[in-house]
Amino acid sequence: MPVIRVEMFKRTQEQKRYLIKELTEAFVKTCGGNKDSIKILITEVDKNDWASGGIIIADKEN
Amino acid sequence: MPVIRVEMFKRTQEQKRYLIKELTEAFVKTCGGNKDSIKILITEVDKNDWASGGIIIADKEN
Amino acid sequence: MPVIRVEMFKRTQEQKRYLIKELTEAFVKTCGGNKDSIKILITEVDKNDWASGGIIIADKEN
Amino acid sequence: MPVIRVEMFKRTQEQKRYLIKELTEAFVKTCGGNKDSIKILITEVDKNDWASGGIIIADKEN
Amino acid sequence: MPVIRVEMFKRTQEQKRYLIKELTEAFVKTCGGNKDSIKILITEVDKNDWASGGIIIADKEN
Amino acid sequence: MPVIRVEMFKRTQEQKRYLIKELTEAFVKTCGGNKDSIKILITEVDKNDWASGGIIIADKEN
Repeated sequence: MPVIRVEMFKRTQEQKRYLIKELTEAFVKTCGGNKDSIKILITEVDKNDWASGGIIIADKEN
Repeated sequence: MPVIRVEMFKRTQEQKRYLIKELTEAFVKTCGGNKDSIKILITEVDKNDWASGGIIIADKEN
Repeated sequence: MPVIRVEMFKRTQEQKRYLIKELTEAFVKTCGGNKDSIKILITEVDKNDWASGGIIIADKEN
Repeated sequence: MPVIRVEMFKRTQEQKRYLIKELTEAFVKTCGGNKDSIKILITEVDKNDWASGGIIIADKEN
Repeated sequence: MPVIRVEMFKRTQEQKRYLIKELTEAFVKTCGGNKDSIKILITEVDKNDWASGGIIIADKEN
Repeated sequence: MPVIRVEMFKRTQEQKRYLIKELTEAFVKTCGGNKDSIKILITEVDKNDWASGGIIIADKEN
């Protein structure tokens, strides 16, 4: 533990690499613990599979 | 909030669009709140990755 | 399948009962399938455990 | 119920089939209940989407 | 990795201990890997928060 | 979107407040986007419900 999960729209590999580094440091800085025990799982969500207000995001952007 | 997640087998985009509309309305009707705050995330699961009774669904259908 | 998960702030048991009925009907109406196969799991989230914009919801309401 | 979710790196279909059989039997053996009610969902995670210690697993292996 | 999550109705601590031991062994036996890397997270779900067929489980049992 | 979920052992409300602030800033810094759209959900996990290597964490600490 801890496990951090991020669900977001598609990003570049470089952004994901940087995000993971920063999230890990944010956790250690605020909650302490061993950096190596922090697991992060990224799920990139397609805009056709995410909705708010009853409308799919991909539809809003068209 | 709220966040509604649906894990289901593959559907058409039209079905997903309709499902999201109806789930959002069902939430507002029963629990109130602001329609725009309702987030829905759909995950389509492959029949090779879902099992019941110890057997993968794709195997049951063959 | 399907599994529907709802993360929301606390509601009454009556609202949860009604929500579950309506979500189940919304799914069958839009995606078809067997009503009995639809599983719903509700997680009530404390306002101290949910944040947006970097601020815990409970703090915004104080 | 119950629902068992497994997040793991890619495996063969044969391994997934065997894993599901064994997890189901492990649940019945230890917690009882009806084998048919046990649902299992497998998510295969790309090594570019999983990190520990602030570093993406795919990067550690290069 | 892997992470195994179990959502189930309430069990005794002894059953949970035994379940975790057996699930871990089932994973290593079928998918290999290092036993220590296997993380398991149990969530006990109240019968008022789980439904199938549009009806809350706690209501079915009354 | 995005939604960030953190599963961790119990922390103080002050630590959670600080963690949320830092995770939100880490996301904006590395992936951009609108700070207000970032949702974070914290789940505090009991040491009796989390295991690694086949052993419940609470048992390891006794």
